[in-house]
Amino acid sequence: MKSVADKLAEIGRDIVEQIKKDNFPAITFPLRSVSNIVFDEEEGVVKLGQKKVTRRANNIKQAKVFAQLLWIAAFAKTELLEKGRSCSLRDLYYNSFNDVKIKFEDQDESDNLVVELETILEVAREHFNIIPEEKSSIFGDLVIEYTMPVTHRGQRVSLTTDPDGKNIGLSLATAKFVDVNASMVIAIEKGAIFRRFVEEQVYKKLNAILIDTGGQAPRFTRMLIRRLNKELGLPVYVLTDADPWGMHIARVIISGSAISAHIPELATPDAKWLGIYATDIKKFGLPSIPLTQLDLHRLETMKRDPRYEDGLWRNQLEEFSKIKVKAELEAFSKYGLTAIIDKYLMKKIKELK
Amino acid sequence: MKSVADKLAEIGRDIVEQIKKDNFPAITFPLRSVSNIVFDEEEGVVKLGQKKVTRRANNIKQAKVFAQLLWIAAFAKTELLEKGRSCSLRDLYYNSFNDVKIKFEDQDESDNLVVELETILEVAREHFNIIPEEKSSIFGDLVIEYTMPVTHRGQRVSLTTDPDGKNIGLSLATAKFVDVNASMVIAIEKGAIFRRFVEEQVYKKLNAILIDTGGQAPRFTRMLIRRLNKELGLPVYVLTDADPWGMHIARVIISGSAISAHIPELATPDAKWLGIYATDIKKFGLPSIPLTQLDLHRLETMKRDPRYEDGLWRNQLEEFSKIKVKAELEAFSKYGLTAIIDKYLMKKIKELK
Repeated sequence: MKSVADKLAEIGRDIVEQIKKDNFPAITFPLRSVSNIVFDEEEGVVKLGQKKVTRRANNIKQAKVFAQLLWIAAFAKTELLEKGRSCSLRDLYYNSFNDVKIKFEDQDESDNLVVELETILEVAREHFNIIPEEKSSIFGDLVIEYTMPVTHRGQRVSLTTDPDGKNIGLSLATAKFVDVNASMVIAIEKGAIFRRFVEEQVYKKLNAILIDTGGQAPRFTRMLIRRLNKELGLPVYVLTDADPWGMHIARVIISGSAISAHIPELATPDAKWLGIYATDIKKFGLPSIPLTQLDLHRLETMKRDPRYEDGLWRNQLEEFSKIKVKAELEAFSKYGLTAIIDKYLMKKIKELK
Repeated sequence: MKSVADKLAEIGRDIVEQIKKDNFPAITFPLRSVSNIVFDEEEGVVKLGQKKVTRRANNIKQAKVFAQLLWIAAFAKTELLEKGRSCSLRDLYYNSFNDVKIKFEDQDESDNLVVELETILEVAREHFNIIPEEKSSIFGDLVIEYTMPVTHRGQRVSLTTDPDGKNIGLSLATAKFVDVNASMVIAIEKGAIFRRFVEEQVYKKLNAILIDTGGQAPRFTRMLIRRLNKELGLPVYVLTDADPWGMHIARVIISGSAISAHIPELATPDAKWLGIYATDIKKFGLPSIPLTQLDLHRLETMKRDPRYEDGLWRNQLEEFSKIKVKAELEAFSKYGLTAIIDKYLMKKIKELK
C-alpha cells in the first residue's frame, strides 16, 4: 500500500506536469454531498457514490481555494509527516497566518479543505497527523509497538499495564500489534462500565479487549476497532445504553457515519450490537426513564435512515416507539454492581456467537 | 491519618451510641451554601466558613434523608472500599433500587447526599471510590506504584511509556510516587498543546511532568496536581488560552472552586499561572478573536470574585476589558509549530521562577 506521504508527492508531481503542459491544474475527486452518500447494503457501510467534482485553478476565486488546498497538502507532507509531528485543525489554521498569500477567512475554510484532502487521499486526516482531542481508552491482552513519535519508535507495551485504560491517541492507533492473546473486542459506551469490567476482570473471564468509546466513538477509536477486526480477525461487540443514541453509537461503529462517508477505514461491518436492546428493558425488569421529545424526534429520523431498515435494528426502533422508555447500562446495578456482567453480558455474547 | 473506611466506621459507631442513649441520632457538619463559602486570602484557597448544619432523624421527612445518607455511607464502606470496587454517581443511584426503603426520588437526591457525605468526611468522593468520567492525562519522568484495583496492586510503571499520555483515573490518582526525576509540573489546558510538548520533548528540555487538563481540570487531576506539589515539592505552572475561561481554569487549580469548597485537597495554592496573559497578545503579536457577549459577561462576574482582587489577576482582567480580544495557545503556530515552546514557555518559566 502506498504511504500517505507518497500519495501527497504524487499529487504534487501531477500538478507540476499539468502546469508544464500549459493547462490550468485540476484535481478530480468524489463529491461529498447528501446526494452522493449511499448505504452499501452488501458491504454494510456508508460510502460516497459515483458522482465526481473537479477543483480547477481557472479563475481567481477558484485559484485561491486551489492554492489553499495545495498549501495544506504541502504542510501535511513537509511539516507533519516528514518531521514526525502532529497538529490539530486549529493549529493548522493559525499556521496559515505564516503565509500572507494563503489567508483563510476563518477556521471553517481550512477545516473544509482538510476534509477535501481526506476525500482526495481516501484516508482519515489522522494519517497525515492532523488529530482531534477526543479521549477514549483501551485495556486488554495485547502488546503493541509504537511507530511514533520518534522518541517511542520500537517501544513495546502491554495494554494490561494501565488499570485506568490507555488513551487511544495517535500513537496507540498507529502502533503495530505484536502479541495478541485476546479473542474478542468489547466496545462500551461509557467509562463507568468500562472501569467495572476492568475491575471485575472481564478481560480474563471473556478473554476480551475492552474499549471505552466515551459516547460516540472518536475516529481514532473507530480506526483501531477496524484494525483489531481486520488485522487480527477478532470479533467485535458493541455495548450501549438502551436508547436511540446508544443504538446509533453501535451503528456508526459498524457502518460509519455520513460525515465521514468519504473515508472507508472508519467502519467495521462485521461488528455486532450487543444491546441493551429495547426489548431487554422489560425482559430484565430494568429501571427505565420516559423518552424525551428529543429522543422521540431522534427515533423518527432514524426510521428514515437506510441503515435501520434491517431486521434487528428495525424491530428495536419499533419497540422503543411502543414502550416510550429508555434504560442505561447502569440500570443493571439494581441487581448489584456485577449484575451487568453475570446476568447480561455473558449470556448475550453466547446468543450472538 | 485516618483512612476513609475508619472515618465511616466511626460515624456508624457514633450513631449507634446515640440510639442506645435513646436520642434521635444526628450528624453535624459545615454548611455548604453561598453564605458560608469564603476565600481564605492567607491560604489562597476557597473554603467553608464556621456555620454548621445538623441533620437529625427527629421527624418523618428528616428520618428518610438521614437513612438515605447512612445507606450511602454503608454502601461506600462495604460495597466499594472493602471490595476494592468503584462506581459512578449514576451506578449508586440505580443500586439504591435494591432497597425499597431507601428510594430516592431522582439522581439529584442521591448526588446531593454524596456531596453531604464528602462534607462530613472532608474528603472527595473519589476517596470512597465514587468516580467521574472526565478524562485528563499525564506524561513525565515519574515512576508510580498502583494501590488499586487489587489486580494491579504493587505494579510499577513509568509515566514516560505512553506517548498519548496516561489517563488520570482512580488508579493513577491514588498511586504511590516511587521514583521521581522531574523538577516541575506544567498543566496545560488542551490536548493539542500537551501532545506538541510530548513530541518536542519539553519533558526533557525542562525536566517537567506534563499534564493535559482537558479544559477545566477534573477533580482527579486537581488531586494529583496537589499531591505532586505537596508530596514531591514540585513547582506547578498552569498554561491556558488568553481568555477569561483560561484564567479561571488556572485559578481553580490554584484556589479551588466554590462547588468543592468543602474539600481542601482539590486546591494547590503554590501553583502559578503561566499565561497566556492578556498583555501577551500584543507583546507577541498573536492572532486574536473579539471577545463575545458571553466572554464579556464572564469578565464582569470575575471582577466581583474575591479570587481576582489580586495584582496580576486584576491587571489581566482589566487588560481584557480594554483590548476586548482573546487568543488561543495555538495562536503561536503563526510563528511555526514549536514557537510556543521556544518563544514563550522557556522565557515565561524563567520570569516566574
